[in-house]
Amino acid sequence: MSVRIVTANQERITGDVQQLAGYTNPDKPGWTRRPFTSWYAEGRAWLARQMEEAGMTVRLDAASNLIGTVAGSEPGLKPILVGSHTDTVTGGGRFDGIIGVIAGLELVRVLRESGIQLRHPLEIVDFTAEEPSEFGISTIGSRGMVNNLSESSLERQDPNGLVLRDALRQAGGQPERIAEEARQERDVALYLELHIEQGPLLEQTGNKLGVVTGIVGIHRYRVVVEGHPNHAGTTPMHLRADALTGAAQLVLELEALAGQAYAEPVVGTVGRLHVEPNASNVIPGRVVFDLEIRSLSVEILEELFVHYRDRALQIAAERGLTVSFDSLSKSEPVRVPDEVAAGILEACSQTASAIEMPSGAGHDGNQLSRIAPIGMIFVPSRDGRSHCPEEWTDEEDVALGATALIRSVLYFDEHLDAEKG
Amino acid sequence: MSVRIVTANQERITGDVQQLAGYTNPDKPGWTRRPFTSWYAEGRAWLARQMEEAGMTVRLDAASNLIGTVAGSEPGLKPILVGSHTDTVTGGGRFDGIIGVIAGLELVRVLRESGIQLRHPLEIVDFTAEEPSEFGISTIGSRGMVNNLSESSLERQDPNGLVLRDALRQAGGQPERIAEEARQERDVALYLELHIEQGPLLEQTGNKLGVVTGIVGIHRYRVVVEGHPNHAGTTPMHLRADALTGAAQLVLELEALAGQAYAEPVVGTVGRLHVEPNASNVIPGRVVFDLEIRSLSVEILEELFVHYRDRALQIAAERGLTVSFDSLSKSEPVRVPDEVAAGILEACSQTASAIEMPSGAGHDGNQLSRIAPIGMIFVPSRDGRSHCPEEWTDEEDVALGATALIRSVLYFDEHLDAEKG
Repeated sequence: MSVRIVTANQERITGDVQQLAGYTNPDKPGWTRRPFTSWYAEGRAWLARQMEEAGMTVRLDAASNLIGTVAGSEPGLKPILVGSHTDTVTGGGRFDGIIGVIAGLELVRVLRESGIQLRHPLEIVDFTAEEPSEFGISTIGSRGMVNNLSESSLERQDPNGLVLRDALRQAGGQPERIAEEARQERDVALYLELHIEQGPLLEQTGNKLGVVTGIVGIHRYRVVVEGHPNHAGTTPMHLRADALTGAAQLVLELEALAGQAYAEPVVGTVGRLHVEPNASNVIPGRVVFDLEIRSLSVEILEELFVHYRDRALQIAAERGLTVSFDSLSKSEPVRVPDEVAAGILEACSQTASAIEMPSGAGHDGNQLSRIAPIGMIFVPSRDGRSHCPEEWTDEEDVALGATALIRSVLYFDEHLDAEKG
Repeated sequence: MSVRIVTANQERITGDVQQLAGYTNPDKPGWTRRPFTSWYAEGRAWLARQMEEAGMTVRLDAASNLIGTVAGSEPGLKPILVGSHTDTVTGGGRFDGIIGVIAGLELVRVLRESGIQLRHPLEIVDFTAEEPSEFGISTIGSRGMVNNLSESSLERQDPNGLVLRDALRQAGGQPERIAEEARQERDVALYLELHIEQGPLLEQTGNKLGVVTGIVGIHRYRVVVEGHPNHAGTTPMHLRADALTGAAQLVLELEALAGQAYAEPVVGTVGRLHVEPNASNVIPGRVVFDLEIRSLSVEILEELFVHYRDRALQIAAERGLTVSFDSLSKSEPVRVPDEVAAGILEACSQTASAIEMPSGAGHDGNQLSRIAPIGMIFVPSRDGRSHCPEEWTDEEDVALGATALIRSVLYFDEHLDAEKG
């Protein structure tokens, strides 16, 4: 059996995206639907109704992930999971996460309309709170699903003093049963997700579909540059220890290092920087900045940082400054198995022009990769933008992505556990 | 008559500085005595008592400047003014401003002890609120004295809603009489001030006294660099418009330009910088920074900025960024008249090792220069520091500065209006 020529219904998907965009906080910019708010609950209630109407059995798991299930035809096969999330950042858009859940819903509708029953059980998942939350962590639902939500994480409080454990319970979860219910290695046949690219590569290269080869690892460091906060008028240039001019050189050094050619793509960014005392008539005495580097290769991440640190120490010494580094976090890269990427590429290539690319952003797939093979499909983001009201993917492209996702599921339903078929 | 060999009493001055340091807000860091607070009023009440005990007639003028007066022997001569301020920045030290007022007090005591009556009337002034105030302006008292405190300035409010006009009235001033009482051009024979250097030059060159040749002009600009706030993970290095790496290059460009050799000393500083959105996973879309350049030469200030702006526009264009400049303020340089600097240098040279130097910081002298010739004497600041609890000048150096001030007053009392003597 080849990949079946089934196609998502563009008009229906567009309508779904518009419907969900209605469940947003009117007092916040853009399309804001923060987890654990009434707008989030109403959006999920709407989604649950659509799942039921599409013939799914709907439930909330212990981590309050919303899951719609369709039975498979072949006993003993593990489920294929298709998911994403419906929460947004504050001031976010209408596509990030949302189209992945809608595409899962569309998949079930198309299967039913086409009279297709999969061999594998199918689960469509709206993961709880994927975006950075008020509790200081992200991908809360997928962490819960794979038992990667520690007791201390569950005790975290939001700025209003609400404890995450209670928030999950209020959202319909059973936090005390997370460990017990958690999926174990090999409980899941495959996890697939459609997502917007959130970057400019598809648009710039004129492709419609991205076959994700992996999710980059992110190494974050806090850098502190210390000099002397002297008077900006009375201290001659040659007697200064200016923490900001030093930090400026370090910012440019990271840009230069990350811009070199490596065996795999690398990006390096200083996104957050704070000057002390930050007064126009005082030479900055201290600058604190966060730098992050991302790559699919741990070796490149480690080597780049060592090289950077050496250069930074040298620059600081030349300027009479001190510089120190603290590791803030290291998320390791996730590789999409070659056979999964190959299957998705085949399904995508029958749908539209496709290229392979890494995901520069983290996703629920990071968590699912702990227990199962994962794969992802990207569709273009206009101007590479996301997490803002201007976030946009053309209706036609969303539908192409959904079609590619449906065809991928059909492909893997056929090829996975084929010896049992 | 040559400069008389009179000497300040080091022990007495040290005691005065310690006394005044007692009138500080215990809930703030360092030695904080903000204008219009109870600690400021108590410090001034103590100072007024000392002035009276030294034989001065004490009053508050319309701008609530505290003034102690001693009559001169020769009718028709304009007064010599000696002053500084007793307010501090938050977290300030025990010397900035304070030693100038104490030295004035010491001058009157020494004259009395030596049985000297000056030809000119003498006024010792504690100027109101010299440091940047909660009303958003500095040198309030000296502005008032020379009628440079506009009606709109008097209507300014502090963060608690207090209007400056009312604050001055509560401090004992008569804001409605400021214009009427203001000193006019040629009402004052000479203004002299002793101050800490607030910079490292005296310490670095091993000198004890600085003869100020002028107060630098300060040109301040706000610079806005705009790029695109894209996702730090998904945007390849070559497709970025990073406002922070652009701003970093502009910060270094100013350092390089100000560090070149000019006909007169120049400094250039970026002290305040703000990144938007300032999140570690977002490429900075906008950076706003304030730059200032200082020099005794208006021509150098203007030329340096034109050169800088050209370079900045070129850098921005190369990076796909935009950059804009707004002039925030331009205070013009003040020159100490050659004959005043020469007289002070003579008095200083008879006291300790002295060099001529510009003042890189603004002072009440900026205002007084609108109506009279001014002169200043600097004493060393340890490590060049000021506006911090560590601000320090050795007791011996404070006394040397006071002695130099006393001898300068004696010099000018003899030489000014000599044709009338």
